[in-house]
This record gives sequence, C-alpha cells and structure tokens, in this order.
Amino acid sequence: MADLPPPPDIVRSAFAELVVTDLAEARRWWVDLLGFVVTAQDATALYLRGYDELTHHNLVLRSGPAAALGALAFRVRSADDLARAEAFYGALGCRTERVPAGVTRGIGEQVRAEDPLGFTVSFFASAEHPQRLQQRYDLRRGAEVARLDHFNICVPDVPLAYAHYSSLGFGLSETIEDGQTLYAAWMYRKQTVHDVAFTGGAGPRLHHLGFFAHEPHSVLRMCDILGSTGEYQYIERGPGRHGVSNAFYVYLRDPDGHRMEVYTSDYYTGDPDHPVLRWSVLDPRRRDFWGHAVVPSWYSEASPVLDLDGKVVPTSQIEQVAESTVRVGADGFTIAPGE
Amino acid sequence: MADLPPPPDIVRSAFAELVVTDLAEARRWWVDLLGFVVTAQDATALYLRGYDELTHHNLVLRSGPAAALGALAFRVRSADDLARAEAFYGALGCRTERVPAGVTRGIGEQVRAEDPLGFTVSFFASAEHPQRLQQRYDLRRGAEVARLDHFNICVPDVPLAYAHYSSLGFGLSETIEDGQTLYAAWMYRKQTVHDVAFTGGAGPRLHHLGFFAHEPHSVLRMCDILGSTGEYQYIERGPGRHGVSNAFYVYLRDPDGHRMEVYTSDYYTGDPDHPVLRWSVLDPRRRDFWGHAVVPSWYSEASPVLDLDGKVVPTSQIEQVAESTVRVGADGFTIAPGE
Amino acid sequence: MADLPPPPDIVRSAFAELVVTDLAEARRWWVDLLGFVVTAQDATALYLRGYDELTHHNLVLRSGPAAALGALAFRVRSADDLARAEAFYGALGCRTERVPAGVTRGIGEQVRAEDPLGFTVSFFASAEHPQRLQQRYDLRRGAEVARLDHFNICVPDVPLAYAHYSSLGFGLSETIEDGQTLYAAWMYRKQTVHDVAFTGGAGPRLHHLGFFAHEPHSVLRMCDILGSTGEYQYIERGPGRHGVSNAFYVYLRDPDGHRMEVYTSDYYTGDPDHPVLRWSVLDPRRRDFWGHAVVPSWYSEASPVLDLDGKVVPTSQIEQVAESTVRVGADGFTIAPGE
Amino acid sequence: MADLPPPPDIVRSAFAELVVTDLAEARRWWVDLLGFVVTAQDATALYLRGYDELTHHNLVLRSGPAAALGALAFRVRSADDLARAEAFYGALGCRTERVPAGVTRGIGEQVRAEDPLGFTVSFFASAEHPQRLQQRYDLRRGAEVARLDHFNICVPDVPLAYAHYSSLGFGLSETIEDGQTLYAAWMYRKQTVHDVAFTGGAGPRLHHLGFFAHEPHSVLRMCDILGSTGEYQYIERGPGRHGVSNAFYVYLRDPDGHRMEVYTSDYYTGDPDHPVLRWSVLDPRRRDFWGHAVVPSWYSEASPVLDLDGKVVPTSQIEQVAESTVRVGADGFTIAPGE
Repeated sequence: MADLPPPPDIVRSAFAELVVTDLAEARRWWVDLLGFVVTAQDATALYLRGYDELTHHNLVLRSGPAAALGALAFRVRSADDLARAEAFYGALGCRTERVPAGVTRGIGEQVRAEDPLGFTVSFFASAEHPQRLQQRYDLRRGAEVARLDHFNICVPDVPLAYAHYSSLGFGLSETIEDGQTLYAAWMYRKQTVHDVAFTGGAGPRLHHLGFFAHEPHSVLRMCDILGSTGEYQYIERGPGRHGVSNAFYVYLRDPDGHRMEVYTSDYYTGDPDHPVLRWSVLDPRRRDFWGHAVVPSWYSEASPVLDLDGKVVPTSQIEQVAESTVRVGADGFTIAPGE
Repeated sequence: MADLPPPPDIVRSAFAELVVTDLAEARRWWVDLLGFVVTAQDATALYLRGYDELTHHNLVLRSGPAAALGALAFRVRSADDLARAEAFYGALGCRTERVPAGVTRGIGEQVRAEDPLGFTVSFFASAEHPQRLQQRYDLRRGAEVARLDHFNICVPDVPLAYAHYSSLGFGLSETIEDGQTLYAAWMYRKQTVHDVAFTGGAGPRLHHLGFFAHEPHSVLRMCDILGSTGEYQYIERGPGRHGVSNAFYVYLRDPDGHRMEVYTSDYYTGDPDHPVLRWSVLDPRRRDFWGHAVVPSWYSEASPVLDLDGKVVPTSQIEQVAESTVRVGADGFTIAPGE
Repeated sequence: MADLPPPPDIVRSAFAELVVTDLAEARRWWVDLLGFVVTAQDATALYLRGYDELTHHNLVLRSGPAAALGALAFRVRSADDLARAEAFYGALGCRTERVPAGVTRGIGEQVRAEDPLGFTVSFFASAEHPQRLQQRYDLRRGAEVARLDHFNICVPDVPLAYAHYSSLGFGLSETIEDGQTLYAAWMYRKQTVHDVAFTGGAGPRLHHLGFFAHEPHSVLRMCDILGSTGEYQYIERGPGRHGVSNAFYVYLRDPDGHRMEVYTSDYYTGDPDHPVLRWSVLDPRRRDFWGHAVVPSWYSEASPVLDLDGKVVPTSQIEQVAESTVRVGADGFTIAPGE
Repeated sequence: MADLPPPPDIVRSAFAELVVTDLAEARRWWVDLLGFVVTAQDATALYLRGYDELTHHNLVLRSGPAAALGALAFRVRSADDLARAEAFYGALGCRTERVPAGVTRGIGEQVRAEDPLGFTVSFFASAEHPQRLQQRYDLRRGAEVARLDHFNICVPDVPLAYAHYSSLGFGLSETIEDGQTLYAAWMYRKQTVHDVAFTGGAGPRLHHLGFFAHEPHSVLRMCDILGSTGEYQYIERGPGRHGVSNAFYVYLRDPDGHRMEVYTSDYYTGDPDHPVLRWSVLDPRRRDFWGHAVVPSWYSEASPVLDLDGKVVPTSQIEQVAESTVRVGADGFTIAPGE
C-alpha cells in the first residue's frame, strides 16, 4: 500500500446509521430505556446522541425492511480531508460518492465509500452543534451514555483489516494473538483505546457499537432497568471488566438484534510511542478480566451491512482460525486448538 | 421515671407530617426533583414514600399557612401498644388523643401525644401496604430515597431528651459530649444508628428528617441535579462523611425551609451489648469526618412544631452549653469554650 | 412442633467455623486477597472479622484434614437463652453440649447442638469486643467486608428446614416456589432479608457464607483483584443483582472450595407485618435479576458438615424437585418441568 | 506574536518537579496515604507515577531547603520538537538550556526554558517505559491516581497567559469571564478539558497539580482515609463537582503546602471545532457546581517557582480584577464588584 495517496485526517469515530424495522419500538428501546438524547426525529429516522456529544448525533436509526448497518461515519479534521478520502479510496479501487450537506440531517457534506473490507464508511468535516447537555443531570436516564466510543466490526481476515486501518493512520493499542494468528485488534485515532476494532468472523458485519458512559454505575443501572421491565433478554454478555481495554462493560442487543456496548473507564493512548498491549489468545482474561466465558452468540451473531445502494453486502466466511474455536474448553475456558 | 407504666413497643420511626405553604411547589421539590414516590394525593395533602417502603408513606406534606412539623409518627408492634402509649404519656401528664383509622390516609388507628419535649408524637400499629417498588429501577429518580431513616429534633436540654427516649426503650448508639455536657445523642429502636437524635438548641423544633438511600451515588446525583436546575441554594451542608454514624450525607432545605438529609451507609446496632461510641465535642470529625466546618444555619435554623390543636408550640432557649459555641475557632475548627 | 419449649431468643447469625486444609493458604486468600481483619491467630486457627464487626470474629478458619463446616453460630440475647437452646434442642431429641467460655477464642459459654437438619449449630450470648475499625478507611482492602450477613445451607427437604427455623422464631422474607414445591426460602432474625436461607439439594451441606459489604464497588473490586492476580478461577458466579433480596453479589470459592458471597444493598425487614415476596421458580430473574443462568456448580457443589465429634455428617439426597432441574432450558433459562 | 517560529508539537502535560523539605514525610504522604506508585527513589528524589502512566513518572519530589515548583514538563511529539522549543523560546527572548538524557531520571534529553510567564518549563520527547500496572488492582491504594491530568498556574495577567499558550498551539475549552475581564482559562493539547489552566493572582506560582482518577469513589475514599488518620487538615476544598470541566474533585495540600487535585470524569475535547464554554464570573456554579463557596486559601495560597538556576522567581501582584474579590458576598456567593 506504499503508493497510496495521503489518507484523510480522521479525528474519531463519530456516528453510525442503523436500519431498524420498527422505528417506534427502536425509540422506546434506545430513548425510553437506554436514555439516549433525541436531537431530531422525522418520519423515517431518529437522530440520537449521548449527553456529552457536541455534534448533531452519534446514531441515526432509519426505518427499513431489514435490520442492517447503513454506514460507519468518521469525523475528519477539515473540508480538505473529504477530497483526500475520495482520492484515497479511489486509489484503492473503491466506489465513492459525495453526499451533499444536510442529506444526513445535521451533517455537512460527506464522502462515502465502499471500503476494501466491504463496509460503507462516511467522512464529514462539519456538523451542527446541538444544545450542550453535559451538565443537565436532571435529564439523565438509563445508561446515561455520554458519546459514541467505537465501532467493532466482524472481518474474515483480521490482518487485512489491521493493514487497511493502519494505512488510514490508526494507531494500535491492543491485540489478541498467538504465534500464528492475529485474532483481534483495537485501533484508535482519538486518544482512547479504540475508534475501531476487528473481531474475526464472517464479514463484513457490524459486531457492535460502543458507547461511552462515565461510571460503572451506569452499566449496572442499565441492567437493573432491563430486569425491572422484564426485558433482561436484551442483556447478552456482562457486566464485566474487559481484559483488553480495561473497560467495564455490558453488551445489549436491541429489538432488531443490533449489538451495543455500554463502555466505561478505558485509558489515554495519545503518546506517540504508546506501547501496544498484546494478549495471548490462551489467556481467559483477554475478553473478560474475571475469566468468564464469552456466550457463543457474542462470537457468532452480528448485523449485515449495506452498500452505497442500500443493498446487503454478501459476507465471506472467516479465513483464519476463529478465536471462538480456540477458546472453548470443557470448562468454558481457553484451550489451544487441537488440544 | 421509675414508676412509669411500660412504654409501647416501638418498631421504628415511620413517617412525619410537614406543613408546607405551597403544595404544588412542595410536590415539584419532593417528587419531581428528589424523586419521592407519590402514594396518594388529595386537595390538601401529598403522601410520599421511598422506593423500599412497604407501608403507605414516610412523609405527609399538608398544606397550611406556615411551615411547621405536624407530627413525628412511630410504628408500634401491635394494637395493644396504642393503649400502652396512652397510659405511658398519660402517666407523664401529657395530653393524648385517639385518631381513628383513616384520618391519616393509609394509616390505622393512632394515639397522638404532646410529649414532655413539646413534640406531637404519633403511634400506630397498622398501615396499608402499597405496591412494592423496590425493584422498579426503571422508575427511580432524584435521590432514590429508599425509606425514612430517622428524626432529628432540637431540644433545649439534651440529657432530658435522652432520659425520655431511654424510658421509651431506645438504645444509645453515639454521643457528642465532654466531661460536663451531653451535646447530642443518637438513639435507636430499629437496628440502625438511630430512629431519633437530639441536637441542642432552642426547642421544640424539628432539625431534620433523615431518609435512607442505598448508595453514595444518590447523594452526589441529587446535588448535581440541583446544580443543573440552578437550585443549588437548597444544598445547605455536604456532601460529606459523618463522624457520628459513619454515614455519607447531604442536607437539603425544601422551599419552606424544612431540612432533610439523604443518608447512606451507616451500620448494624442490633446486638444487645452494642457499644456506645462517644465523640469528644473537641474532635472536628464528629460532625464531618473530613473536618469541614458546619455552616452556622445548620446549628441555628429549624422548623417549628405544632401541638395537637395545630398551634405552634412556643420554644424555650437552650439550657446548656451549645455545641456551636464550642466549635467555632478562627479556623472554623473546634476550640474549647474560653480558650 | 406445638409442644416445644420456647426457643432461644436469637439475635442474628454471628460466625461460622470452617475447616481448611492449609491455614497459610487460607490466610493468604481470606486476609491478603479478600481483606478480612485478623482478630487473632494461633497455631491451628485464624479468627477473622469484617471492618464493622464489634464482636471477636465472624469466621474461624481451623486447620484440619478435609474441608468442612464445623459450626454455624448464632448470637442469643442473654445467658438465659443458652438454657433455652439446650431445652429446645433436647425436646427435639437432638444431642447438645455445653462449651465453656474461651474454648472458642473470644466467645463466652456456648450451647452446641446437632440440629434436626444435620448441622452443628452454636448459641452464645457474650463475646469479647475487639478494636472498633469501622472508620479506619486507611486499613480497608479487598472486598472490604463489613460483617457476616447470613448462612445459606443445602437441605434435602426445604419445607422441613422452613418449619424448623420457623419454630426458632425466624421470619420469612422471600421464597422460590410454585404450586407444589417450596424450592428455597430466606429467613431472618435481624432486620435484613436473612440470617439463614435454604437451597434444596443433598444435605446437610453448607452452601455459602454471606458477608455484607457497603457498596457495589467492593464487589467489582474483588473481582478485579482476582483478575489481577490471575486467580479468577475463584469467581464462581456473578457479579450480578439478585432477584431475591435485591442485593448486588458475587460468589467466590476459597482454595478449599468453601463458597462465600460478597453481598450488598438488601433491605429492612423489621416491621411486624413485613410482607413475604414469593418468586415463581419459572421467573428467570429470581436468582439473577438480569436473567443470567446460574452455573451448574453453584447448584451442585457445597461443603460437608461436621457433627459435635468432628465427624462428617452423611448426606441425604434431595427429596423434592430440584430447582436446578426446573431451570435449565436450551437457552439457559427457566422451563417448566416436563415442558 | 505573529513572527514567532513554529512552536514544539506538545503532546500533553507530563510531569512536574516539586521541591519538598522532608523527603521521608513527602513519601509517607504521596505514597503511603495517596497511593502513588514509586518508579524509583534515590537519596534526594522520588519518582512517582499513577497506575495508568506508561512513562517513567508524573511527579518528581526533590529534597530542598524550601517548598517550590522546580519545573512543569510537557511531552513533545518527536526529538525535532526540542529544537523547535529552543527556537520558539529563544525568539521570545527567554533563557533556555539543554538537559542531557538521564539528568532527570528516566527522561530523555530535555529543553528547559524560563517562559514569559516566569515558569520553568521543560520539553522532552522520550522517556523510559516502566512496568504496566493499569490492571494491577491488587496494588491500588489511596486515591488510585491514574496519571497526571493538568497544571494550574497563578498568573497576574490571565489574558497574557492565554495568549502565550495559544501561541504554543493550545486549544481553549472553558473560561470564567465577564464583559471586561478574563478571570481564568482552561487550555488543552491532549483531548481533555486541559493540560494547563490559569488562575488570576500573584505569580508566577503553582496553583495545583491535577491528577486523574477513574471514579468518584477514589475522591471520597481519599477523604475518608485522611479522616481515619486524623490528617483531615490536608483536605482544603471539596469534594465537589466543578462547574468548569464538570469534573468531580477534591483539593489536598501536601505537608509542604503544595496543592494537588484528585480529578475525575471530565470530557472529550478532540474535535477541531470544539466549542468553548464561557462561564460568567457571577455564576456561583462556575467553581463548584453545587454553589459552595470557595475557601479563601484556595484563591490566595500557592507554591513559589524556581528558575533554571534553582532560585525563587519573584512574584508580581495581580494586574487585573481578582476573581476572589468578585465572588464574596455576605452569603458566600457571588456579587458583582461594587454591588
């Protein structure tokens, strides 16, 4: 990839678009239960943000016939980076398109591309600033999500995803690996553990959207609320402490099966020589620091992704040893393949 | 008091009646901001409880011309204890009256008395059981108060108050004292630090109502909410850690000036030989374990109390050395009187 | 049991004696990792307490050839209750013995009995008061356990256990049941959800000792510590929120396999008409309010118990439908028997 | 400042050097009580870091005759930035010097300068990586400080300090101001609210060092520990919620009077158009969101600073309206000057 033109200067993962099959039910789940802030709503879409977010939204829920990921949107530093994104993906042979300002409500002009991993990615430089709600504790509800933290995507070839995002200027914070295989990787632009992470599996699929909360209390409270309303089936995995990232977490599934994570308390990664933390795939603490086994659905299920035309992108099977096959021993803990 | 008849078997401090001057504003404050549960409301009164409470209410807010304490109500073990209360207070020369079931909404028959300290106290054995909301985390708001914890009353003569509640069978958990003076005392029937405490000062007056919350988070959140709405003037003292009781606390004043405390994490006192913890009045940690000075209003201001006819009981000046006069040095910390 | 003499006036569950096979390793686990306070140690035993405990100990760890429960000790109100205990168990045909003061270090005279459920139970009225450490935050470590909260015992016949403890004057707070079967019950003397609970299973065996901590933070921190030291295998179940009791919890297994629970934030049960909360065995939230499946070992494994001679009491198989057989569907959630 | 050469590319505030008069007592305070990690110690200095820090240290405590700030050290992106720092400060007419690698233990070559505000600032690109302790929960103690967060400095002329740090490429997150005066400003390089903040007052002096902790629990625990050991006099202000930054905080004074802050839960500022939050000096919530008055010592006391020769830099009096004179009304709340 040495001859690529310079990549856009990506600031951070900024928002995602999810297709949901029942917008009213999605609003009940994301807004009434989880407590997301509604920036705007129209007939076919909801624009949601966390309490700290100072751009228009972190999540667009768009009504559609089948659950899917529409796009992963990254904020770039300046308008010039849109042309850089176009050139960069063009040089990779990827289809791109310009989306005029306002087509996505609250967002300036975008460049969208079908990236080499099969995902529709979007780049934008400007966005509307909504009302600042950071210190409106009187309004906080549910998981009290502050902002989007990261995208986690399923890819059949983790090293390929790693190489692609390296070429986009992402830094590497942590990995799961062994001598032969890179099972998973966490990469960042903003100064946190990640803006994007890769989970080996059939892809392209969206594994989950990670949202930042300020306190472990919010993670526990969200689970208590779902117990109260009898909707505990939406709690898929956790709460727990991650080995990778050291964050406290819970994974939820929305009524369409989209996975989201409430995530808190990771660490600063802004130093230029920030050291990579490499976890052995044989360490049962890598995914849960308390050694709890990962539920099978967490490894196997994920959301399909749409191309620029809104068609579902066919998935390819995993091309490497799957972490989940390494992991499961009779006791639920890691065993080496072939052991 | 050796010849007194047996006292009623008091279970715990159960509810208080406060007169408020603007019921709508009181509802906004206690319900909308603090998050109390409304069991019932009628034209002149609100019946509120905490999320754990399994009787009808912990607090009655009754509309009236001037802010005051109507009554302090204790639950007794059985209907027989009503007659015992009548006899006990009668023997003390106190005026008593029977209040038929339902006169206080949700509460069975009461015996009310004008006690020797000048307070109107009530005793009841039965109460309606409202809906159990302990595990309705989806409904929790504000300070997430669980239940009433204690009454704190201003009395001109602390040893007299101590003797009276001793004769009622209350245990002593903690004191503030020196060689000459008992400045304050904490006494219990249920197995916590207190159901009633005495603050030396002009009396009879209500110093505050203490409500239990499950986590320090609730104390901090309540302050954050009052900052958010710009009503921080209602935060009088704290948050802080008490020396006495080891509880984490904040004191708020309602729009009528009634003081309430959000109180969490005290300790078990149910053993028969539970040892008394005696604090020196010279220890700056007794009122705030972090040594913070107590604001003057906390020592000087309190709510008037009403007699059985609803008339304000005249107060007597403090008859002993006031703790507040011992306390204040140039640096805000304790100095000995005359030092 | 109508003709039984009056039972002793039990104040609370007070301490347990566990036989451990390696006292040094047990000290490392209970003291260095979990942070229990050492009141005393001699060649063959460790006497441990929580930070709030004001009697000599909550736990005796005694060196022995095989892991077992020695005794469950209850504090009684007065010395007279020792004779009552003797008479009560004698009337039941149970073997009893007097244990002179000091035989268990720090504890006054005891009456011990082999109870009808097969457990060795102890009753004592007096104990030494150790140094008060409640407010020594500088010393706190590990799970920051405050005090013993409860005993949970495995019994083949839950209704029999319920009847026995009812005859001892215990109140009932919660149950797991269906139309035919009482699967589990929680009973109290002190004003919390329980001093003793029954888990249906082969018995007599000790299911777990529950210790109270003041904050959910302590539960999470304990798990993080066990992750840090690579000893996550000791985390058996949780952290989670209980349906029954509403407490936040984690279950750990010590190096001898004894199960202990760090337990926080249950509720007050001291009112005379405290309403029982009855959970359907079909409600997946009863054991974990977030609907998480219970790990099989939690239902099947427990510690053997010793008789008054220190011999292991033979166990009987469960005589009723086991809760664990009701529970497990293909999805890990509850299904009705025969469904 | 239009003709200045390009500034060094500053990554973040990285460490500070404090002169302390009793190194053993300083160790007891910073290490034993506060829980800082000791990276190294020699006869005259201690090198301390937080649990998340991945460079050698966040704080050097150096033994000396009088309490002072030695230097404020910023990490720069690359070795080339050292020459840029030299040129930048040289162009400002500031004295600079090169400090060879290792002169400050664990730190590569530095450029040090006497900056226009009178502070000795240091720039370094490389540092040793110590053992990663982020996930050693078993070692955590005290305030569980994660890393240095910011420097807060007293300057007589806040607009001048603002202009200087603007020329160094710092972004502005929040201010305290009115129509005429900039009372205080918060500026950042890393993606948090600040790396440096200015408090109007006699200067140059160090107002405080801010250290990041992950949870409010750590702030409360630190106060509880200082209460436990009877050293509550070291708690100067708080705990509280800041208006500016929205962080939860407490200010402590070390045995030499150096002020430090335990600071948690601010927000992300990495977007290129991050909007500035401007607080009115008349808003009592600006310094404490709960409206608590700031103690006078917090405004008036600070640490002297040393020049490159280790001599105390003379201070100049404040040249603008002091925020503290605006603030204090009879009720402890803000009043306008002249009101």
